[in-house]
Amino acid sequence: MEWLNEILEEIEPLNKAIMNQKSNQIDNLTKPIGSLGVLEKIAIQIAGIKNELNSKINRKNIIIMCSDNGVVESGVSSNPQEVTKIVTENFTKNITGINALASFAKSDIKIIDIGVKFDFNHSMIVNKKIAYGTQNMLYGSAMSRVDALEAIKVGIEIVDQLSLEGYDLLGTGEMGVGNTATSGAVFSVLSGREIEVVVGKGAGLTEEQLIYKKQIVERSIQINQPNAEDVIDVLAKVGGFDIAGLCGCFIGAAKNKIPIVIDGLIASVAALCAYKLNPIVKEYMIPSHLSKEPASKYVMNELGLNPMLNLDMRLGEGTGCPLAFNIIEASLYAVSNMGTFSDAKLNKKDYVDIR
Amino acid sequence: MEWLNEILEEIEPLNKAIMNQKSNQIDNLTKPIGSLGVLEKIAIQIAGIKNELNSKINRKNIIIMCSDNGVVESGVSSNPQEVTKIVTENFTKNITGINALASFAKSDIKIIDIGVKFDFNHSMIVNKKIAYGTQNMLYGSAMSRVDALEAIKVGIEIVDQLSLEGYDLLGTGEMGVGNTATSGAVFSVLSGREIEVVVGKGAGLTEEQLIYKKQIVERSIQINQPNAEDVIDVLAKVGGFDIAGLCGCFIGAAKNKIPIVIDGLIASVAALCAYKLNPIVKEYMIPSHLSKEPASKYVMNELGLNPMLNLDMRLGEGTGCPLAFNIIEASLYAVSNMGTFSDAKLNKKDYVDIR
Repeated sequence: MEWLNEILEEIEPLNKAIMNQKSNQIDNLTKPIGSLGVLEKIAIQIAGIKNELNSKINRKNIIIMCSDNGVVESGVSSNPQEVTKIVTENFTKNITGINALASFAKSDIKIIDIGVKFDFNHSMIVNKKIAYGTQNMLYGSAMSRVDALEAIKVGIEIVDQLSLEGYDLLGTGEMGVGNTATSGAVFSVLSGREIEVVVGKGAGLTEEQLIYKKQIVERSIQINQPNAEDVIDVLAKVGGFDIAGLCGCFIGAAKNKIPIVIDGLIASVAALCAYKLNPIVKEYMIPSHLSKEPASKYVMNELGLNPMLNLDMRLGEGTGCPLAFNIIEASLYAVSNMGTFSDAKLNKKDYVDIR
Repeated sequence: MEWLNEILEEIEPLNKAIMNQKSNQIDNLTKPIGSLGVLEKIAIQIAGIKNELNSKINRKNIIIMCSDNGVVESGVSSNPQEVTKIVTENFTKNITGINALASFAKSDIKIIDIGVKFDFNHSMIVNKKIAYGTQNMLYGSAMSRVDALEAIKVGIEIVDQLSLEGYDLLGTGEMGVGNTATSGAVFSVLSGREIEVVVGKGAGLTEEQLIYKKQIVERSIQINQPNAEDVIDVLAKVGGFDIAGLCGCFIGAAKNKIPIVIDGLIASVAALCAYKLNPIVKEYMIPSHLSKEPASKYVMNELGLNPMLNLDMRLGEGTGCPLAFNIIEASLYAVSNMGTFSDAKLNKKDYVDIR
């Protein structure tokens, strides 16, 4: 874990001087001070991340971590396990929700097999398989500590590579039957919240199946006794390769100074793991939507973030990211293309700062 | 008012048969049923509005109603009254927030002078002036009943014209110093809510000025005694030309079967007026963001609508609309470009409908 600590220690906070400059620039635009709300905050954040006063986004990519979860054999999902494999393949066929929404937002996607129970042979699917799915957390650790660290490394290295390729806005997505169960488990341990409020219906469980899923998650935590103070321990015992991989993506984004958008529940829990490893990582995160999965609002509270979209979505795959990308780009476009108070023949003194 | 009643009576509800067909079509797309949330609902609503199964948006326009409010002389705004004139002119100079955001979303804007205290001479500003601002509602009716109806007619006719020009997605915006005071007054009367909770700081009042603004609004209502059961009476006595004009836009959109996006507080109050005149009008409305003005959430509750964007914006001008346009277009694009369960080699039966 020494290599990870080295990376975590090298992560730098945003450039506050440029953020102040950007903030002053925005306060001179022709509008009541602060009246573009979150759009202004995003532009200031991105200036601080990219270390430049006037940024625009050149290339966008949504990283989709695909992996299987051993606990599915115990019946925590409405889907058979092979759905992970099928949907991962479907990403290459351009027929999924994220394909359509990413295409709309002119974003690329990067499909990572970090642990699917199947050997793919497709140029679009990057083979970073750690194992053919995790072990069933109901009977012991989902993965070894070594594998959890390896999965985090995969996420960091993917972002390193995308950074080299010139991507300057990233999104986070996942595909993995059973991953609302693992995310719920990880979140419950890290936050101390009860299973009852953080485990939801995922892709589509009945009320009865939901009760059963909660029991499985609860027992998995009891059996494994993960140490809430040790994120890697929690990820290894009751997490999944997808969550650990996405945790790595958030760390990688901070390492490479790239803004990174959080999608739904699974990505949010991964973001929380990264935040717990080094709180500075959060400065690089941008939330997108509030997922309909019940835990999402608690995870966002824990992160202290406020999602900008309220769309009752619960698809995963990273589908909130392209919608957020568009708002981010609108934000940068607006603050770069508006006139100033002086262009507008208005007196800035007429506007009290009521932020 | 006979002509208005005729228009209101001819407004038709959405085509439920096509909406059902669209809903079934969406339920066959490769995703957990209902998991695209509001994106699905928007696509279904637009199918019902446009009377066609597979719609796309061809031309977008944001109508900006500009007018002055007599009550400004009593000190309800941080801005001098001439800011209405200056910003209206600035819309033609391509330097305002709505210029930048509309341009980003590839939307046109239509600037309507429905009552600014100035004679413009610019090809981009449509002269529909009813008067050089309203009267001061603190001393009597802001406008006559005839003028309120005339302002509504302006809104309807603008939409008639835009419909002829092929615009098939509309947004609503406004510019008028003092219009958070008039909107607050109209909303308080229509909803019975106390001034204390529905009047906010607008462009930027201090705490002390806010207390004064609330008193002015309260006294204006006491002096005019508007009849809460008579929307036209309320608009005439404590409203503004902008609110009445936007109310007309919502009616016009329903008349012409065009989806119309609600911006912030002033547009929301206008939407509520239109809804009170004929509840069916609401079926054509799409909310955008929740404005930071405190009344906004109550207006949305009254309308029974849930804004999709949570951006703490309070600029007005219609700036929420281009951001919503993008989500609406993403919605239509996604449901038209995803594959079906059968394309995806997935079994729909594995997905329980948990909506």
